Amino acid sequence: MYIFRPTEFELIAQYFAPLAAPNAFGLLDDAAIIAPPLGHDLVVTKDMLVAERHFFELDPPEAIAAKALRVNLSDLAAKGAKPLGFLLGLALPDDWKPEWLERFAAGLAKDITTYDCPLYGGDTVRSSGGLTISITAFGSLPTGSMVRRTTMQACDALYVSGTIGDAAIGLEMRTLSSQNPFKTNQNKDNLYHLLNRYLLPQPRCDLAEIVRKFASASMDISDGFLGDACKMLAHNNLALTMNSNVVPVSDAVKEAIIFEPELLEKALTGGDDYELLIAVSPAKQAAFEHAVERCNVPVTRLGVAFLTEWTSRRGGIIIMDETGAPIEFVQKSFTHF
Amino acid sequence: MYIFRPTEFELIAQYFAPLAAPNAFGLLDDAAIIAPPLGHDLVVTKDMLVAERHFFELDPPEAIAAKALRVNLSDLAAKGAKPLGFLLGLALPDDWKPEWLERFAAGLAKDITTYDCPLYGGDTVRSSGGLTISITAFGSLPTGSMVRRTTMQACDALYVSGTIGDAAIGLEMRTLSSQNPFKTNQNKDNLYHLLNRYLLPQPRCDLAEIVRKFASASMDISDGFLGDACKMLAHNNLALTMNSNVVPVSDAVKEAIIFEPELLEKALTGGDDYELLIAVSPAKQAAFEHAVERCNVPVTRLGVAFLTEWTSRRGGIIIMDETGAPIEFVQKSFTHF
Repeated sequence: MYIFRPTEFELIAQYFAPLAAPNAFGLLDDAAIIAPPLGHDLVVTKDMLVAERHFFELDPPEAIAAKALRVNLSDLAAKGAKPLGFLLGLALPDDWKPEWLERFAAGLAKDITTYDCPLYGGDTVRSSGGLTISITAFGSLPTGSMVRRTTMQACDALYVSGTIGDAAIGLEMRTLSSQNPFKTNQNKDNLYHLLNRYLLPQPRCDLAEIVRKFASASMDISDGFLGDACKMLAHNNLALTMNSNVVPVSDAVKEAIIFEPELLEKALTGGDDYELLIAVSPAKQAAFEHAVERCNVPVTRLGVAFLTEWTSRRGGIIIMDETGAPIEFVQKSFTHF
Repeated sequence: MYIFRPTEFELIAQYFAPLAAPNAFGLLDDAAIIAPPLGHDLVVTKDMLVAERHFFELDPPEAIAAKALRVNLSDLAAKGAKPLGFLLGLALPDDWKPEWLERFAAGLAKDITTYDCPLYGGDTVRSSGGLTISITAFGSLPTGSMVRRTTMQACDALYVSGTIGDAAIGLEMRTLSSQNPFKTNQNKDNLYHLLNRYLLPQPRCDLAEIVRKFASASMDISDGFLGDACKMLAHNNLALTMNSNVVPVSDAVKEAIIFEPELLEKALTGGDDYELLIAVSPAKQAAFEHAVERCNVPVTRLGVAFLTEWTSRRGGIIIMDETGAPIEFVQKSFTHF
């Protein structure tokens, strides 16, 4: 069957030019100008997503597009930045189809509106394997106010947004056969919640301004709660001890862990949460907690960091079970290599 | 055999943190701040390179790294911008080795110094196929002075830098067996020149300031001289007629075309030149030509554009043979799809 395949030039004009920022020259150039408002810094971030590593090739194209953009918006939120726009690098597999690309562009279009983050340009090539998406996102914040990952201090409280482990257990559910009792016994709403949290991250853009005003350090959780919290703490030889039941989990994750207790480790160390870890100094904690109360995103206080003599190799977080004994985890976080 | 594979965290610390810009927080964050000098715009561009499409997997890692950066620097030069820095997205194949990455980083390090273009951050993931590199490069120029692709006017002269077709014929040479008479008969210096021009583009950064001061429109040639010149002309219904011997070619390309006349088409329509097409209005042509004379990059005047009634589908450039008859080309430029 002959399938019409537009050239790169036609492909950009048809699918991506309608998504372009007003000042992106209709994507007719090889470059664009990005300017933050006066008195603001430009924050840049880049995340690559690869088929069968970060998403499934047969996921809805709209969801793949949204996820690729949202994981970058999550990084911007963690830095306290407001989205400004993005560049899209797209390596399409040999068998791509126009209908697929149309749905992909529709998914992007929706999020461009939701997050007010237009397309400024990019590059479209043929992949040597599966679909690969490389987005560079731009954000802005008042000059000098970017919140870093490595600046947490002793006595800072550590907070986390939303719930942890949904996406990792959602991914686990996808890999089980439909006859698996774990899957068939699960409450259908809960199952849907878990699958959806893997498919479609919710970047915490609503927290960006609060992070910028109150946080001493912040990062988004993409490679697992435990490993990412360790990265944030261990850099300055900080530690934090907490009971496992302090970590906020959804009813769906609770149900899954009751059925299969070993999933606690998956929940705490699996990837794709895209929640924020936020450190706040003692002087700002009351104001921070007051500000988040007026926001629609739940935020949980995990504990207070203290100085330790551990090396960064040892990590910086100890999670205890209900008896107060530290839980040993096989692998603290997702790793590609 | 057990091969030591660092985690992404260690990999960044070991290979890429030494390449980081002083204000890139040692690559310990998920984002960076990029700021052009006061009174300057930030120009952004993004090119993706895929193994076996844009380079060969077994090319020297230093050359792969340099090419990935340089094709982006070429875009900046065409816009009149000075390099500021870049983000590196790297999707590594399953069998990547630390020694390979060390050489890749060394190649980047060399170009970072040569072009004064430090690393600001990026992302490293596992590829679903071959090596894929997605670089986003940043440049700066005085506010409002970015030179666009689509702004060429009737009566503008069109110029091109360097020589055309070396890389496309170099690529052709690589695909021939070592016993092919075409390859064995070729002068060894010429052969080396052609192969090297494919392997290692020379971005015309030295022309950036001249482009910015004098050009009415500009673009770099990445998908073939003829097709790219058509894009630039046809957008405003412009045309240009020229004799094929006006196109600047190297001695090596001349030798190849004498041996095999059909290679003229490959030279004029093949990709990977990374030379600049520069349009200059009548009032500025004398000053432009004077400025390029004092520059080390040869620049050739191709002709003057005139208004036509062709649609953009018909293209905007006619190349004639020595008898004045137009040459018909099968395919005007490289296309991925």
